Amino acid sequence: MRDHGDPGDAPSVPPPLAPVLNATRPSAAEEARTIAASTNAGTLATLTADGDPWASFVTYGLLDGAPVLCVSNMAEHGRNLAADQRASIAIVAPEAPDDPLASGRVTLAGAVVRPTGDALDGARAAHLAAVPAAKYYIDYSDFTLWVLQVQRVRWVGGYGRMDSTSGADYLAAAPDPVAPHSAGAVQHLNADHADALVAMAQTLGGFPDASAATCTGADRYGLDLRVTTPRGIAYTRAGYLAPINGIDELRSAAVELTRRARQG
Amino acid sequence: MRDHGDPGDAPSVPPPLAPVLNATRPSAAEEARTIAASTNAGTLATLTADGDPWASFVTYGLLDGAPVLCVSNMAEHGRNLAADQRASIAIVAPEAPDDPLASGRVTLAGAVVRPTGDALDGARAAHLAAVPAAKYYIDYSDFTLWVLQVQRVRWVGGYGRMDSTSGADYLAAAPDPVAPHSAGAVQHLNADHADALVAMAQTLGGFPDASAATCTGADRYGLDLRVTTPRGIAYTRAGYLAPINGIDELRSAAVELTRRARQG
Repeated sequence: MRDHGDPGDAPSVPPPLAPVLNATRPSAAEEARTIAASTNAGTLATLTADGDPWASFVTYGLLDGAPVLCVSNMAEHGRNLAADQRASIAIVAPEAPDDPLASGRVTLAGAVVRPTGDALDGARAAHLAAVPAAKYYIDYSDFTLWVLQVQRVRWVGGYGRMDSTSGADYLAAAPDPVAPHSAGAVQHLNADHADALVAMAQTLGGFPDASAATCTGADRYGLDLRVTTPRGIAYTRAGYLAPINGIDELRSAAVELTRRARQG
Repeated sequence: MRDHGDPGDAPSVPPPLAPVLNATRPSAAEEARTIAASTNAGTLATLTADGDPWASFVTYGLLDGAPVLCVSNMAEHGRNLAADQRASIAIVAPEAPDDPLASGRVTLAGAVVRPTGDALDGARAAHLAAVPAAKYYIDYSDFTLWVLQVQRVRWVGGYGRMDSTSGADYLAAAPDPVAPHSAGAVQHLNADHADALVAMAQTLGGFPDASAATCTGADRYGLDLRVTTPRGIAYTRAGYLAPINGIDELRSAAVELTRRARQG
């Protein structure tokens, strides 16, 4: 799964000492859908008349996961798409970690089509929902709506987490309903429930030697934990018994994790 | 210069009623250099083995304006560059206006080369200066430094301001020494010198009917002003008598603009 070299002089990561329970994480397709849904701007790659690769900033909406672009035929990328429909779009999750390569990002590759009929109405509505300012130009004759039919997907979740998936799996997946709304809950867990997080790392996350634990993220399947051990810093999961469907279910899921961790 | 259609139902912009004095603005090449210098991440477009366009997130440093990439040969964009050196990089200035299309952005297009000898040392230092975390992988054998030799440049400064320029003009230009550091000064002008800004719009900016003015930016050549008139909202410049070379010269330049405006 990894396609970078070792992380240089970064400390090595100690493995868990016991099985990690309920270790399910979002799939690459789910991660990709979540990143695509997290913003409304990315960078398009198209082909110039000479076949050169052309990178340009674009806004987009999503129609069932497919990016919907609205570009001017007078702009270079608009001319490029009119002549050759092959395209890909790179989208970076709008967090700002100190190290940009730690950001989640995704490339969606395929070819664009011009929607017609009901599909055109849906595409127009999807673009406007994501990019309200498009109302000023979307109906001008030099602008064209294009829908990117995604054929393959490359997801990078930061260092060491990455995978490829198919367009079909991407379209069939759903964006995570919890992660985009979890910042406040994660902050609360770290501020007020540090002992519970240590217990989770010890009994659910496979690190009985954990001396401290910080929650670094929450998604529909569980919590990401950063664990301090005498062997070094490690990363693990505290997984719910069953997936949750929204941020309003996160509190009870965390209570249940705490209960199971302390019974452990 | 414009290659988008009219801005829809946005209000039309009233023209100045008198000449705009010292209306020099940064050139497209200077704007492009300023945007490239404003961040350390962009999106690369490369060609896959099938000749498809591939967009991917990258970090970069700058060597005399040329982007220096450090990519793994095992990553898709690394394989692409090894096989076909044509590439472009799209860079978006890291502001976050409500409307993403109002962001300044640039595409630098050309072909990458592998630096050798002294050029390799310079490229390595340039990348590390911009991306400190690269120390963890830059010396691993699967990573390659590539320098993008810029052949052409497309700059978009937001709605209605855009231009193309050559790689030679881009490389010969300098990033603006004032704009990246001007946010505090601009805020101060708007908070404490609103009357002076109105005077500048009236007597230097060509809008004798200005009733209010807001500074929206400062660069080495002058101030950007947003002007309220009975005819609608307009945009103009208040230009210094001579370019300034750093943020420490902005205060005296603004004092001089105020003096000239009130003499007007």
